[in-house]
Amino acid sequence: MLTQQQVLEGRQQWLGGGYRLFYQEPLHVVRGEGVWLFDSEGRRYLDAYNNVASVGHCHPAVVEAIAAQAAQLNTHTRYLNDAIVEFAEDFLTEFPPELRNLTMTCTGSEANDLALRVARQITGGQGVLVTRWAYHGVTSALAELSPSLCDGFEQGKNVWLIDAPDTFRRQGAFAGGVERALEEMKQAGVKPAALLVDTIFSSDGVFSPEPAEMQRAVAQVRAAGGLFIADEVQPGFGRTGSQRWGFARYGVMPDLVSLGKPMGNGHPVAGLVGRPELFAEFGRRQRYFNTFGGNPVSCRAAHAVLQVLRREELQQNAQRTGEILREGLLKLAARYPVIGDVRGDGLFIGVELVSDQRNTPAPELAAFVVNQMRHKQILISATGPAANVLKIRPPMVFQPEHATLLLETLAGVLADIPL
Amino acid sequence: MLTQQQVLEGRQQWLGGGYRLFYQEPLHVVRGEGVWLFDSEGRRYLDAYNNVASVGHCHPAVVEAIAAQAAQLNTHTRYLNDAIVEFAEDFLTEFPPELRNLTMTCTGSEANDLALRVARQITGGQGVLVTRWAYHGVTSALAELSPSLCDGFEQGKNVWLIDAPDTFRRQGAFAGGVERALEEMKQAGVKPAALLVDTIFSSDGVFSPEPAEMQRAVAQVRAAGGLFIADEVQPGFGRTGSQRWGFARYGVMPDLVSLGKPMGNGHPVAGLVGRPELFAEFGRRQRYFNTFGGNPVSCRAAHAVLQVLRREELQQNAQRTGEILREGLLKLAARYPVIGDVRGDGLFIGVELVSDQRNTPAPELAAFVVNQMRHKQILISATGPAANVLKIRPPMVFQPEHATLLLETLAGVLADIPL
Repeated sequence: MLTQQQVLEGRQQWLGGGYRLFYQEPLHVVRGEGVWLFDSEGRRYLDAYNNVASVGHCHPAVVEAIAAQAAQLNTHTRYLNDAIVEFAEDFLTEFPPELRNLTMTCTGSEANDLALRVARQITGGQGVLVTRWAYHGVTSALAELSPSLCDGFEQGKNVWLIDAPDTFRRQGAFAGGVERALEEMKQAGVKPAALLVDTIFSSDGVFSPEPAEMQRAVAQVRAAGGLFIADEVQPGFGRTGSQRWGFARYGVMPDLVSLGKPMGNGHPVAGLVGRPELFAEFGRRQRYFNTFGGNPVSCRAAHAVLQVLRREELQQNAQRTGEILREGLLKLAARYPVIGDVRGDGLFIGVELVSDQRNTPAPELAAFVVNQMRHKQILISATGPAANVLKIRPPMVFQPEHATLLLETLAGVLADIPL
Repeated sequence: MLTQQQVLEGRQQWLGGGYRLFYQEPLHVVRGEGVWLFDSEGRRYLDAYNNVASVGHCHPAVVEAIAAQAAQLNTHTRYLNDAIVEFAEDFLTEFPPELRNLTMTCTGSEANDLALRVARQITGGQGVLVTRWAYHGVTSALAELSPSLCDGFEQGKNVWLIDAPDTFRRQGAFAGGVERALEEMKQAGVKPAALLVDTIFSSDGVFSPEPAEMQRAVAQVRAAGGLFIADEVQPGFGRTGSQRWGFARYGVMPDLVSLGKPMGNGHPVAGLVGRPELFAEFGRRQRYFNTFGGNPVSCRAAHAVLQVLRREELQQNAQRTGEILREGLLKLAARYPVIGDVRGDGLFIGVELVSDQRNTPAPELAAFVVNQMRHKQILISATGPAANVLKIRPPMVFQPEHATLLLETLAGVLADIPL
């Protein structure tokens, strides 16, 4: 085992300059189990951040599925194999009947990038609407519509940025923004291809707007000839508690749904679900072959995750434990005015920190809290354009006792804030 | 287990329209071991096509590495972890000392797409030179420079297509084409970002040009301010026999090297190797975070593949067995004039089929041979703009006895050709 210093130096020496670490004091992890991560000195950390290990770190059912299939067969989709068909048939029952086709990829970036390709081909348009602090992935096409990716963001010329539905500061700005952007596109002679949103607006600061707001935005895009792509890479798979998919909370029907992070509990598997007629039209003009996408090991991993999600009723747990967390956070908000807002659904929670009664964002405070929590062995992070929103998004096996530990620790950190 | 008919119907019903199958009679695979794939009725097929299962289907050392690490920890690179550092340090010894940084992705597409992002940012140029029948991946940015992807290929406006170094028909056309394209770019006011080539020109028909030809092309691009990106997704990892990397056969030094398919023997792991100063400059302006990229399971899988490659001396085997294959194919060429050319290096072989003495491409014949071989339980495919080049690219554990079986079977198929 390497020392922490060796890992730090090794990263510095061997890894490309784009890498970043969490926390002022980076965490050297060596083992994971359920909601716990263990560092190289045997200390355990309550993981209240990682949505990828969605059914719990190293869930035995997923590990076993991967190990068994890897020993049996791992090849591509140009041969017939049972795994992808068994998975697709079962998985698609989780979606509305209109969304009956699955194309598998390896990452959420690949899923969103494919969604763009399909939308642009089908509509004949190039224009894409995304929120002002969106994140949709790392490919060239996605980087130019992911403002949160970097300081020197270069907005694509066919990309329109709209305000997120900020339920804290600017209620109702979203659909109006979509309307204005569509009008601008029209004037610029750009045909809209799609409205692409993370349905819980994770990087924008975690927002769940009123259904009517989302419905209006989606209707406007459709009327202008564009598609609605629901990016479920973060909110999907039951995390929001009340529904399996973030979009379902709004009563809207996407044309395409992109999936990623929690789909394989860490195994690189992702996909794009959508209306069969869209994929059929896309497929008439071109093939889509992703060498690793839909291989039997990835399908068995994703299938095992789905089965655990159902068997252990993790969506219901997200609802219940999420409620306990939010209630506790609201109590803290009543005691500590630095908590300007508590929001989110299920086990996807945003806690906005502010520095005064005008709700001025408090990014330094958020960084302080995140790092103090890490010091006290609770892992969370911060999000939003000002990075002042605590992001609490634990594995979905998070239990009430873990919520209590988080809340008590956070209370201690808030009590320690230097004023 | 599903029947073949059920799998076919399930794919039709549940999978997106972009999917395609190999062979007139698709193959229903259920198990893999070494160079063998087994179908649902227990028949075994000699796999002479799959370069992903590079160290042999279901190699126990790779399966064990995946299973052990998946049970221990699988998380992302914003924590410190030993696996990525141990892998990167060891892996980079396989490259020239100038190429000392690794950024990990999940697929070759992601690696090539990142290479484009880096090249475009570093050079400030947008122009990319690729070969006329190139394939570099499935993202939006790569699709517009991958003519072989589909019939309705839409060439990106900053993309210039150049002739591949066709050693059979047009010796010497490559560097001249690069020169002309750079001149055209200049006149069009497009600054070159990169020359991006698969170093064995797989989709163009499998070519290994003279080193001087490649050196001249690379020098021209450099002189014009562009980078040279070696796409090693297909030729890399020792497959060409004489060298670990396809580019090394030409005595050229890439700025960036993209890796994929064989890297994890089927596990979705890929990466981009390059000059540290390029990644450093890229990283100064933006982060690159790939959620699954560089996770400990993927790193252990890739590390196990590397160790097997060394321990079992598979590059040397590719050299030796490849030589036997080529010698046998040349003997067949002497007997059967439909074989116009035998080429390639190591275990990456192209056999060009022609219909007359003017070397007219014979795609129907190639399809006939590929399907007859499949019928006789030997798996190969066809490539090139006319799909008339048999592509023989087996797992690198392919032994002389397997080469003999392939050659005897091919001789039988060629003897059966309806004239």
